[in-house]
Amino acid sequence: MLKLYSYFRSSAAYRVRIALALKSLAYDTIPVHLLRDGGQHNGSAYRGANPQGLVPALQMAERGPVLAQSLAIMEYLDEVHPAPALLPADALGRARVRGLAHMVACEIHPLNNLRVLNYLTQELGVSGAQKDAWYAHWVALGLRAVEDVLARSGDTGRFCHGDTPGLADCCLVPQVFNARRFNCALDAYPTIARIVDACEQLPAFRQAAPDMQPDAEHALAR
Amino acid sequence: MLKLYSYFRSSAAYRVRIALALKSLAYDTIPVHLLRDGGQHNGSAYRGANPQGLVPALQMAERGPVLAQSLAIMEYLDEVHPAPALLPADALGRARVRGLAHMVACEIHPLNNLRVLNYLTQELGVSGAQKDAWYAHWVALGLRAVEDVLARSGDTGRFCHGDTPGLADCCLVPQVFNARRFNCALDAYPTIARIVDACEQLPAFRQAAPDMQPDAEHALAR
Repeated sequence: MLKLYSYFRSSAAYRVRIALALKSLAYDTIPVHLLRDGGQHNGSAYRGANPQGLVPALQMAERGPVLAQSLAIMEYLDEVHPAPALLPADALGRARVRGLAHMVACEIHPLNNLRVLNYLTQELGVSGAQKDAWYAHWVALGLRAVEDVLARSGDTGRFCHGDTPGLADCCLVPQVFNARRFNCALDAYPTIARIVDACEQLPAFRQAAPDMQPDAEHALAR
Repeated sequence: MLKLYSYFRSSAAYRVRIALALKSLAYDTIPVHLLRDGGQHNGSAYRGANPQGLVPALQMAERGPVLAQSLAIMEYLDEVHPAPALLPADALGRARVRGLAHMVACEIHPLNNLRVLNYLTQELGVSGAQKDAWYAHWVALGLRAVEDVLARSGDTGRFCHGDTPGLADCCLVPQVFNARRFNCALDAYPTIARIVDACEQLPAFRQAAPDMQPDAEHALAR
């Protein structure tokens, strides 16, 4: 049985949960609480499995190899369990979908995750309002670019690429979930809003959502 | 002829230049200066080609499609020009190499690029010393994790994965170049230092370096 080291609110773990659900792959969740015990991801128990100390990580079997980095995990799942595919069949389409996924994973999320927000307040002493403005700035810049790419391409369909959900949707939905949680306005991104609505109608996306996780703290999961 | 929108000091462009050189693919460099004219990447001319306004971008032919996001571009090149391969032949190996590449591209570089450093000084008013400490913090955290992954795995060879250079090396070398430019100490990462030395002995890596670019400003390129 696959084991996913996960935290219900981790955006990167959420991506992998969607991919696992789209492929109907069963797994056990091993919760790693990012706030308790000084961050369980920093503890030696978890670092023994994943020396990066980041969630998610996917353990392939009892004592099997542990994969880290959400995009690498999703590419692996797509190679080993090819149906339904997370990437299109043509190389240009794959480049477009990977590019959209990386626009979220390399341009927005890394600036807004917990350890970065903690550094801003604890090391640089920025105010709560400045932290929120930082968060909103990178979300707005990043989603603006994603919206422009989606809105001007005929490759965009019901989902980011055509009419089946894929790697880009797996990244976009958790990012939009986070943006909503931080009260970032999404009115300026109608294509993104439409695609996220379409995703959220699918059981796989629903099942992967933070409030559906075994470690969910329900006051925080929406 | 391929056209690469590039800036000599851009770490993400440097990755793609290495990949192109490893595959002996000829291309024209279209310089996009990130500092002149308020940042040429923000201008309408470049945004017409790449609405993300980030370098690099790869144009496939005169009026052909433009690919963005360095990792998506390198994956595309590897699919369309498979030899020499940037990814190993087995799925677990590919996951390991992609994971290492993403440790650089998602965990270190996004926090330390020009627009982020500008936000820190211009919007948050942090001092030069605080900005340097921020830079060094994310480099140290990220390279520590990369070193641990590399040092404890038998898959590490002369390069990040085995004895041929690949996607992870394409990401690691530009990151180490940047770290050196910001005077970050690398003594604690002997495996990384050894691998980067091995890379820098190869003509492809040498040819892709900032000081070898047509738009290089030599006082800034080392």
